[in-house]
Amino acid sequence: MAQKPSIPKGTRDFGPVEMAGRNYIFDTIRSVFKTYGYQPIETPSMENLSTLLGKYGDEGDKLLFRILNSGDAFSKVDFEQHRQEDGTLNSKTLSLKVCEKGLRYDLTVPFARFVVQHQNELTFPFKRFQIQPVWRADRPQKGRYREFYQCDADVCGSKSLLNELELVQIVDRVFTLFDVRVCVKINNRKVLTGMAEICGFPEKVVDITVAIDKIDKIGLEAVEAEMKEKGLTDEAIAVIEPILTLKGTTAEKIAAMRELMGGKSASGLVSETGLKGLDELDELFGLIEAAGIRQEVEMDLSLARGLNYYTGAIFEVKALDFEIGSICGGGRYDNLTGIFGLPDMSGVGISFGADRIFDVLKGLDKFPKEVTESTRILFANMGSDELRYLLPVVKTLREQGVPCEIYPETSKLKKQFDYADKKHIPFISIVGGNEVEAGVINLKNLNSGEQESFTKDDWAAMVAFLSK
Amino acid sequence: MAQKPSIPKGTRDFGPVEMAGRNYIFDTIRSVFKTYGYQPIETPSMENLSTLLGKYGDEGDKLLFRILNSGDAFSKVDFEQHRQEDGTLNSKTLSLKVCEKGLRYDLTVPFARFVVQHQNELTFPFKRFQIQPVWRADRPQKGRYREFYQCDADVCGSKSLLNELELVQIVDRVFTLFDVRVCVKINNRKVLTGMAEICGFPEKVVDITVAIDKIDKIGLEAVEAEMKEKGLTDEAIAVIEPILTLKGTTAEKIAAMRELMGGKSASGLVSETGLKGLDELDELFGLIEAAGIRQEVEMDLSLARGLNYYTGAIFEVKALDFEIGSICGGGRYDNLTGIFGLPDMSGVGISFGADRIFDVLKGLDKFPKEVTESTRILFANMGSDELRYLLPVVKTLREQGVPCEIYPETSKLKKQFDYADKKHIPFISIVGGNEVEAGVINLKNLNSGEQESFTKDDWAAMVAFLSK
Repeated sequence: MAQKPSIPKGTRDFGPVEMAGRNYIFDTIRSVFKTYGYQPIETPSMENLSTLLGKYGDEGDKLLFRILNSGDAFSKVDFEQHRQEDGTLNSKTLSLKVCEKGLRYDLTVPFARFVVQHQNELTFPFKRFQIQPVWRADRPQKGRYREFYQCDADVCGSKSLLNELELVQIVDRVFTLFDVRVCVKINNRKVLTGMAEICGFPEKVVDITVAIDKIDKIGLEAVEAEMKEKGLTDEAIAVIEPILTLKGTTAEKIAAMRELMGGKSASGLVSETGLKGLDELDELFGLIEAAGIRQEVEMDLSLARGLNYYTGAIFEVKALDFEIGSICGGGRYDNLTGIFGLPDMSGVGISFGADRIFDVLKGLDKFPKEVTESTRILFANMGSDELRYLLPVVKTLREQGVPCEIYPETSKLKKQFDYADKKHIPFISIVGGNEVEAGVINLKNLNSGEQESFTKDDWAAMVAFLSK
Repeated sequence: MAQKPSIPKGTRDFGPVEMAGRNYIFDTIRSVFKTYGYQPIETPSMENLSTLLGKYGDEGDKLLFRILNSGDAFSKVDFEQHRQEDGTLNSKTLSLKVCEKGLRYDLTVPFARFVVQHQNELTFPFKRFQIQPVWRADRPQKGRYREFYQCDADVCGSKSLLNELELVQIVDRVFTLFDVRVCVKINNRKVLTGMAEICGFPEKVVDITVAIDKIDKIGLEAVEAEMKEKGLTDEAIAVIEPILTLKGTTAEKIAAMRELMGGKSASGLVSETGLKGLDELDELFGLIEAAGIRQEVEMDLSLARGLNYYTGAIFEVKALDFEIGSICGGGRYDNLTGIFGLPDMSGVGISFGADRIFDVLKGLDKFPKEVTESTRILFANMGSDELRYLLPVVKTLREQGVPCEIYPETSKLKKQFDYADKKHIPFISIVGGNEVEAGVINLKNLNSGEQESFTKDDWAAMVAFLSK
């Protein structure tokens, strides 16, 4: 009995056209990572649940895909031990009894695990990139999938801000190659801490940053209302407001912030951490200027992003000509590997969102035309003798790297032409008995109509004709 | 509390060196697939269990990794319904209650599902390749993993033997590029059927082929003993024996087999299917001769391989200079998509075993030297001014595709040199105050000891020096 085939919700098939676009994205990002000395690694799709649990918060734990133990997973489980007061079973505790493994949720935790596990084989500073799928049991919706690729580059074992610069350069180069205008927004976690310190509410740094992160969307007044709601005094808000309304160049903003963090704000409080953050921002922007960046780069003191991880620089990249969320982001974290037993290993990384970048390139029509083309020429199949005549010629062209197809059946020419047309094959060759006798190969450019005849051994001329 | 990190048994981390070798293998295979007009697709890692179950036999069903339903998987399951007579729970029926999805077990079933699901968007004959991991809950052992990559190329919607030829050509080209000598063994399922028919035991085709498949390992006598054990008469074995001991060229063997299948064997029985298989073999070897193959190709009438799937040609590839199982295999199947509701879609495909090919290339020391090299040059970090002087130079070299690193810290030169040494970086540059003043860049080839000084804008000369 035939089943109607389908795939799990939130997952996708990628046909040749999507694959071409995706590979263009991955290849471009990969090639740029490599020119900065980042090396590829891959980790298993499955990790032990003990590696994953507790790393992404309670919500993340729920979104992990768990893998049923193989063999007799259930036979010896005492279910009654997991019965709850309302009579139902406790899925959370039960799943731990029958599942030891889960699918990778991101590339950062497996990277940390990798670094700790292989620390004695690695050369530090260790620069790695990783392009692999991750899985999250999120509710599927437009643009959100349960399986999607991340493209991450991280360096660990170096505190130098040159690493931050290089990540900005990578972003710059990648989007310049994509011909997409972006703005790279940069902030520093220490400056956010400093803001909380000088307003007198160091313990409210999360509340403050969550609020100011929304300033673009909801405006200054609403941000201040939210801070007040979270328990900040009017005096504290009066310290923060001038920071949020700072004008001027990056240098001017940093200078003004140095005053405020140095004790010149309304509170008179000093934040050493904030000053350190400003020094880092100052140095990073100095490096950016020395290196020369093509894309827009902007200091954004309201950028908060994944606050819990980061301890230094924070990055976020927005497309300027296409409406979509951030397409790349990252930052510095000082203790990622600590949880696996390797303390004091500072790292900094970025992650490119391949799915959103795909949408941007498609929306802006920026995929190069060659990307979607696959087969260059179709040789019509006119019969057994003609086929035998063609085989060595086609073999040579293929060895020269020209993607060729011979139509497999001796069907009517109309059908063979239709095949070339549907597959957007730009050249065709029809070799019949006359050509075999004359020892020639005819090639035709279907776009320009140009056609030419070549002696069958003159593959160099054929390759040249086919590459036009 | 620090956890000691580990990964699930049967899975692997791939560091930069293994990745380089693996990518070389994938890139080579991919590039050859493309020159034959095969196009990439990818399918989700998870399939519905209904897609996977029953496709790989009972043993295969047990080896599927199942994914626990997300949310409250257990709360409403009535476990007592799954209680068995011995008091334990039935894992097989229970797992179906709490798992709807499983991880891909191979690339063939997802391909069949893909073809049926997307049949209206595809152009037939449809040639696709797919390079993705698969998962099997096999007992891990040397060379057998629970997560491993398959590299498959299949064409469906064409019965032409040109497809078989092209797959042989692909194998030929791939291993020639790898500089590995192989033997491509070819048989035809119909000939195996014919053998069973002319010996008078058509229903014993599986027993016969399972036995003769072992002839290389256990010898003729043991094979005959096994056939006898399976119920074949001495007369039947006397019909098969001459086939197993056939000598001569492929053409001579085919001619002799035509006699036997045509009624000239001791039984006098005729097998039309067997004769059809011989016609196919004859035509395929004729095409192979016309195309010109570099590697050894051999008709092997004892080759059985995955008998249940295949209906025509069968392929298997063995390395000649390295002891290992088959490194590539495939064949024609006539009804792969039938189970998903699309009958009469003949296909033929091959699968390259990336892990074994890796072992062969490593064992024979055939990985090209450039493969493992990543960063081409390390620029020593001598301080802030020198760094700023270097940044635009390094940027330009990177844009020319040269993988460069600047050591991120201003550490002692010894430490920076050690880093280059450990990462096998072949060039180094030390730019200090004098070079900055003179406007030059010094490059040194660490292998040859050669060094040269360049004006800082002469990137073309630097690229040339670095590519030596």
